[in-house]
Amino acid sequence: MPVTLNTSDADFETRFAAMLSAKREDSADVNDIVSGIIADLRARGDAVLCELTAKFDRLDLTPDRLRFTPQEIAAEVARVSADDRAALSLAAERIRAYHARQMPEDASWTDPEGATLGWRWTPVSAAGLYVPGGQAAYPSSVLMNAIPARVAGVGRLVVCVPTPGGVINPLVLLAAQLSGVDEIYRVGGAQAIAAMAYGTETIAPVDKITGPGNAFVAAAKRQVFGRVGIDMIAGPSEVLIIAEGEQNPDWLALDLLAQAEHDADAQSILITTDPALGHAVAGAVDRILPTLPRAAIAGASWRDYGTIIIARDLDEAAALSDRVAPEHLELCVDDPEALATRCRHAGAIFLGAHTPEAVGDYVSGPNHVLPTARSARFSSGLSVMDFLKRTTLARLTPGALAAIGPAAMRLAASEGLQAHGASVEARLKALNERTAE
Amino acid sequence: MPVTLNTSDADFETRFAAMLSAKREDSADVNDIVSGIIADLRARGDAVLCELTAKFDRLDLTPDRLRFTPQEIAAEVARVSADDRAALSLAAERIRAYHARQMPEDASWTDPEGATLGWRWTPVSAAGLYVPGGQAAYPSSVLMNAIPARVAGVGRLVVCVPTPGGVINPLVLLAAQLSGVDEIYRVGGAQAIAAMAYGTETIAPVDKITGPGNAFVAAAKRQVFGRVGIDMIAGPSEVLIIAEGEQNPDWLALDLLAQAEHDADAQSILITTDPALGHAVAGAVDRILPTLPRAAIAGASWRDYGTIIIARDLDEAAALSDRVAPEHLELCVDDPEALATRCRHAGAIFLGAHTPEAVGDYVSGPNHVLPTARSARFSSGLSVMDFLKRTTLARLTPGALAAIGPAAMRLAASEGLQAHGASVEARLKALNERTAE
Repeated sequence: MPVTLNTSDADFETRFAAMLSAKREDSADVNDIVSGIIADLRARGDAVLCELTAKFDRLDLTPDRLRFTPQEIAAEVARVSADDRAALSLAAERIRAYHARQMPEDASWTDPEGATLGWRWTPVSAAGLYVPGGQAAYPSSVLMNAIPARVAGVGRLVVCVPTPGGVINPLVLLAAQLSGVDEIYRVGGAQAIAAMAYGTETIAPVDKITGPGNAFVAAAKRQVFGRVGIDMIAGPSEVLIIAEGEQNPDWLALDLLAQAEHDADAQSILITTDPALGHAVAGAVDRILPTLPRAAIAGASWRDYGTIIIARDLDEAAALSDRVAPEHLELCVDDPEALATRCRHAGAIFLGAHTPEAVGDYVSGPNHVLPTARSARFSSGLSVMDFLKRTTLARLTPGALAAIGPAAMRLAASEGLQAHGASVEARLKALNERTAE
Repeated sequence: MPVTLNTSDADFETRFAAMLSAKREDSADVNDIVSGIIADLRARGDAVLCELTAKFDRLDLTPDRLRFTPQEIAAEVARVSADDRAALSLAAERIRAYHARQMPEDASWTDPEGATLGWRWTPVSAAGLYVPGGQAAYPSSVLMNAIPARVAGVGRLVVCVPTPGGVINPLVLLAAQLSGVDEIYRVGGAQAIAAMAYGTETIAPVDKITGPGNAFVAAAKRQVFGRVGIDMIAGPSEVLIIAEGEQNPDWLALDLLAQAEHDADAQSILITTDPALGHAVAGAVDRILPTLPRAAIAGASWRDYGTIIIARDLDEAAALSDRVAPEHLELCVDDPEALATRCRHAGAIFLGAHTPEAVGDYVSGPNHVLPTARSARFSSGLSVMDFLKRTTLARLTPGALAAIGPAAMRLAASEGLQAHGASVEARLKALNERTAE
């Protein structure tokens, strides 16, 4: 049985707060190692990529072998079964359709003073996507990162993926192909991040780097931030389910376990207004858990971080959920739309009993790269916005400058910035002289 | 005379590349000091704020004196002249009007499979704005940070501002008042950032921290990132002007100097197709510079980083500008709209000879917090989006789950995530049984 809390208990607040502040991740301090790799990469380029790939991935490469050739990609992709290809294509199309609607619009208007104002969105020129190797090489993550970039209009899209022993998951290559990726390199780790940020003889630098990775990759992303843009640094995954009434305990148990099987550090929380349902779900988890191939991982997550909370009513459940600010929020209640309006902090909300979180990982359309570790309080999942930037625009007529320029001069004077004021004054003086002629 | 480059020169590319990669800022390594302050603040709260305020600002406070009272604010604000108040109010209104147009819209639609998809924007619950003390206490920056937060709908808006010797710029308090700030604390430095991120007995924690500051403040923002959201870490300011034809050299010189007077590390660049104009502007800078109160700062910036580039044509000028990706881009040319479409990377564009960059610092309406140090390649200026986050929404009907669920099961199987697939399968099985009944 996991921790079960009841909001009526005297020690509830203490125990809930402890759960919120529990650190679920050991962040090994790899900063020094990573900064050494970055410095070395900047000094010696491709040679470092080849050396470290030989060392960590047991793969001997020369610089001309760093990049997958079209023939190599075609040969791998040909191994994908028709069913897998169809499933991946369906996912790609649905993700593309969802993200196409996110494209923001440019704006331009002229105000009564004669100032024409607005903004314009443009894509980043080049983006790089990191794809972890081995077991964590999820083709779905390739789609979720690369498609928003392509929809945004990114000109050049690069993937770096380690291939331990030279082995690659062909679905990863197919996902890259379906997403319109331009270049795929068989390099991983901090050196791949450094190569995309600074460039080597073979890999031209990009402007933005996204994608998940281990502690070395995360540290490298933090260190190159500023030189390039990065997406969030993802923590362990989490789900919070609010359930009431006549819900199927097995379905809820499977949703909790689907989160738990990702990672021993993942967290699954059930908040229910019905103690009997809470009990039934806990029992279903215990029954199903041993049947899972990843029972060890899911079991550790459920044992260490799994939580069932009995709440008085749905208002209380929503308030507790907002304090967690979960990455994934499932609302298995009679009126999920009404409850959703009361939940303000969540990365993604899944409404109703027929929207298991797992469909969101693959095929529903919204992005599965979402804010973890309570950061949904202030941040959003990956979107086309991550691959766009906004330039503000202003054009003043002489009349507009005459109308608002004096206020700028006044404020510049109050801030002690004389040239600021003089740059406005010189223009206003010329306008006055012209008017006086 | 500053560096003058001509794109026809044989060594142009080398010298331009050197200019791009020149480091304009000495970033003192204050990380250890800052992490000590943060740890101390977390352990001892208000006591640390009072001790460090006594030490750095020569101001003895007790916890009940950390926050400005309404009476104290009113007394300071009463000292502002009517003209300054009118100018600040005009700026606030124009900034509010511009940012109100940035509010993004929620979306919801139902696709042919029966999936209702969409997203919803919600504001962060609480935001904190850091305002530097002393000479860098710009009331305009208070408006530029606080108004977007208020427009976004942030529930609680906090300002921390150091008051060395107990002195505060009354315009800063007025700007906070005009922006709708809820709480103002007389604390600064890394300890103020730590207090807003972690909270103390007196200051409740916030979810997002924005605003400029010195190296200690910047380091503290980096360290609390993740616990709270932060805006960008700003580098030295920069302007790039593209000019052709009959432009007034004095106006251009003043615009270059307005940037240079901010900071000895600021950079002012002129690209012109007319060598005679370049020469005339250089002469005007030399003539005007000694007349400025901040001549020492502006002179150092112009000497060390000022650059005039003679380009063949406007296409070449636009391409060079994109490589700089300037924070501020002024287009003093006959058809600035046409040239603007060819410049893809810039924080803000000022079109035409009557739109000096200085109006953008104060009154034109767009934000003056903009990406520096080439980061306009991948990031945008401050906006209401910085105080909002997006939650994605999905609701599947049983029919939608039947349509797209099998693809999710297939992909889950390919990624080895059995509980993911089982969570879909259990629901589909129940649907099939119901249909069979």
